[in-house]
Amino acid sequence: MSLLTIGTVAFDDIQTPFGHAERVIGGAATYIAVSASYFLQDIKLVSVVGGDFPSTELDYLRSRGVNLDGLQIKQDEKSFFWAGKYRDDLNTRDTLATELNVLADFNPVVPSHYKNADFVMLGNLTPAVQKQVIEQFPQRPKLIALDTMNFWISSALDDLKEVLGMVDVLIINDEEARQLTDEYSLVKAARVIHAMGPRYLVIKKGEHGALLFYNSDEDPASDQIFFAPALPLAEVFDPTGAGDTFAGGFIGYLAKTGDLSFGNMKRAVIYGSAMASFCVEAFSLDRLKELNEDAIQQRVDRFVKLVNFDINRAPSAL
Amino acid sequence: MSLLTIGTVAFDDIQTPFGHAERVIGGAATYIAVSASYFLQDIKLVSVVGGDFPSTELDYLRSRGVNLDGLQIKQDEKSFFWAGKYRDDLNTRDTLATELNVLADFNPVVPSHYKNADFVMLGNLTPAVQKQVIEQFPQRPKLIALDTMNFWISSALDDLKEVLGMVDVLIINDEEARQLTDEYSLVKAARVIHAMGPRYLVIKKGEHGALLFYNSDEDPASDQIFFAPALPLAEVFDPTGAGDTFAGGFIGYLAKTGDLSFGNMKRAVIYGSAMASFCVEAFSLDRLKELNEDAIQQRVDRFVKLVNFDINRAPSAL
Repeated sequence: MSLLTIGTVAFDDIQTPFGHAERVIGGAATYIAVSASYFLQDIKLVSVVGGDFPSTELDYLRSRGVNLDGLQIKQDEKSFFWAGKYRDDLNTRDTLATELNVLADFNPVVPSHYKNADFVMLGNLTPAVQKQVIEQFPQRPKLIALDTMNFWISSALDDLKEVLGMVDVLIINDEEARQLTDEYSLVKAARVIHAMGPRYLVIKKGEHGALLFYNSDEDPASDQIFFAPALPLAEVFDPTGAGDTFAGGFIGYLAKTGDLSFGNMKRAVIYGSAMASFCVEAFSLDRLKELNEDAIQQRVDRFVKLVNFDINRAPSAL
Repeated sequence: MSLLTIGTVAFDDIQTPFGHAERVIGGAATYIAVSASYFLQDIKLVSVVGGDFPSTELDYLRSRGVNLDGLQIKQDEKSFFWAGKYRDDLNTRDTLATELNVLADFNPVVPSHYKNADFVMLGNLTPAVQKQVIEQFPQRPKLIALDTMNFWISSALDDLKEVLGMVDVLIINDEEARQLTDEYSLVKAARVIHAMGPRYLVIKKGEHGALLFYNSDEDPASDQIFFAPALPLAEVFDPTGAGDTFAGGFIGYLAKTGDLSFGNMKRAVIYGSAMASFCVEAFSLDRLKELNEDAIQQRVDRFVKLVNFDINRAPSAL
C-alpha cells in the first residue's frame, strides 16, 4: 500500500531544560514521513519549503523512500519557522515565534501519480488546506487520518468541522479533544467527535499513553476502546515531533499491513507509541534517523511486557 | 491469610458538581476493609470512633467479616470529620473542614489475637501512628503496605521516612511521589523511593491508571514495571475513597492468594483498579456495598479487554 502525507517541512528552534537546538529540521510532514519510512517505502509528500531548506535533508528523505515530487520549493522565499521553549516539566511549552513564510499562501498540489495513494495522513495544517488535498483525489482513498491543534479549533472551527466530516481517523491530544467538544470526560468527548465524522479517534495523552476509540454507526454494540500505555521514561529530552512521529508510525503500520480491523488498529497504536518514545530521546530527527527494525521490535516488546498481565480465572481467584 | 488494616473510620461531607452528600460514612479504613472484604473474610480493623458513629454501620462492617475488637469507641467524643468540595474536573478538591476529634490523641492498640495477621495495610494516618502499629507485632508480617498523603510529606517527613524503612509496599499518587522525591520523572521518583525502603511501589495516576514498580536489591536486572490502565468512564460521580478502595482491593487480593510474585502483584493492581472504578460511581460506600463476585469479575474482564493487544510477530510485520 502507499501513503500520502501533507504537513509542514520546516525549521525549529527548541529550548528544553537540557539544551537549545537552533534552527534544526522539523515539521509535521518530516516527522510523519521519516517515522512511516520504517514501515513502508512508498511515501508521497505534499508540502512547501523555501530556497533555504538544505538539499542534504531532502536527499535524506529520498533515501528513506519518500517521493518529493509534491514538495514545492520556492527558491526566493523562506521555510516555515517555529521557535518554542519548554517548561521544566516538559508538558507545557511557550511559542516564542511563528514565521509562516512559504506557508502563508500555500496552495497544495497533488501530483497525478500521487492520486492512487491508499492511505492519507493529513498532518497539522490549516483545515482548508487539508480539505483541498482530499478534494484532489478522483476516488476516495482507503483511509484518511487527520491531525490538528488547538490553534485551528479556536480560529477555524467551521473549516475544521467540514474536513472532519471527510476523514476516517482523528488524531489529537486530550486537551484538544476537550476543547473541540466542551466535554471534560474523554469518553463523552469521543462520542461528540464520532458524531462529527471520524469512525476512529486516537486521543494522545503524552506520558499517560493513548486511547483508541472505534464507533460503529451500524452496530453500536461493536463500539470498542483500547488503552495504550506510554513507556515510562527516566529522561524525556525533547517532546517536539512526538505526536507527528506517533501519527507516522500509526499510519505507516496500517499502510504496510493494509488491515483495518480493530485488532490491527491497536497494533498500529503500539507501533506509533514506540516510534514516539524514540523521538523524545533527542532533538529534531536525530534519534529517529538512527533506528532499525531490531531496535523498533525491541521497543515494542517493552510495551508488550509493560502492560501484560494474566488474570487467573480459577474459581478461587475471588 | 488474614489482613489487618488501620486508618480512619469517619464522617465525610462531600460536594461534587453532581450533588452534596452531608455527613456520610467515610474513612480510609472503612473503604479499605469493605473493598478487601470481597476477597477475604478474615479482616482485623484498628481505628477509633466517637459515640456519634452509627452502630448500624459497625454492624455492616461485621457482616462483611470485619473484626472490630481493635476499634476504640470513645463514647463522649466525636468521630473524625472531613469536608471537601471538588472542582468541575473532579481532579482537584478543596478541603473545607478537618475536625480531628477522636484522632487528636489516637493511641492505636493491636489486640493480641490480631498479631498473627499476615498482611497489613496501613491506611493514611500520622506516620508515627502507623509506626506504632508495626512495632506491636512480635514478628514481622508477611507484607506491610502503607498509604500516605501530601500533608504528612510536608509536615512529618522524618517520621514518614522512618516508617517507610519498615514497609514493603508504598501506595501513593503521582503528585505525592514527586513531592516526596523532588523528581518529576516517575521512573526517577521510583528509584528514590525504593532507596527509602519499599521494594514495591504503586503510583496511582487517577484517570490515567497506575504504575507498579518492583526493585530487587539482589538483582537489579530483575527490576520490573507494570502499567495498569484506568477504565475510561463517562461519569465520575465522586472520587472520595477511590485510593483507599484501590488499596483494599490490592491488599485483599494479595491476602486471598498469598502469592507475592510480580505476576500476582500485577493482578492485585488490576483488582484494586476495578474496585476503585466502582467506588467513584456513587457517594460514600453506596456502590461498594452492592457488589458481588460476578460484577467484579465482569469489571476485571473490561480491564483485560481494554489493554489487550496481540503483536503479530511475522517477519512481514515490519
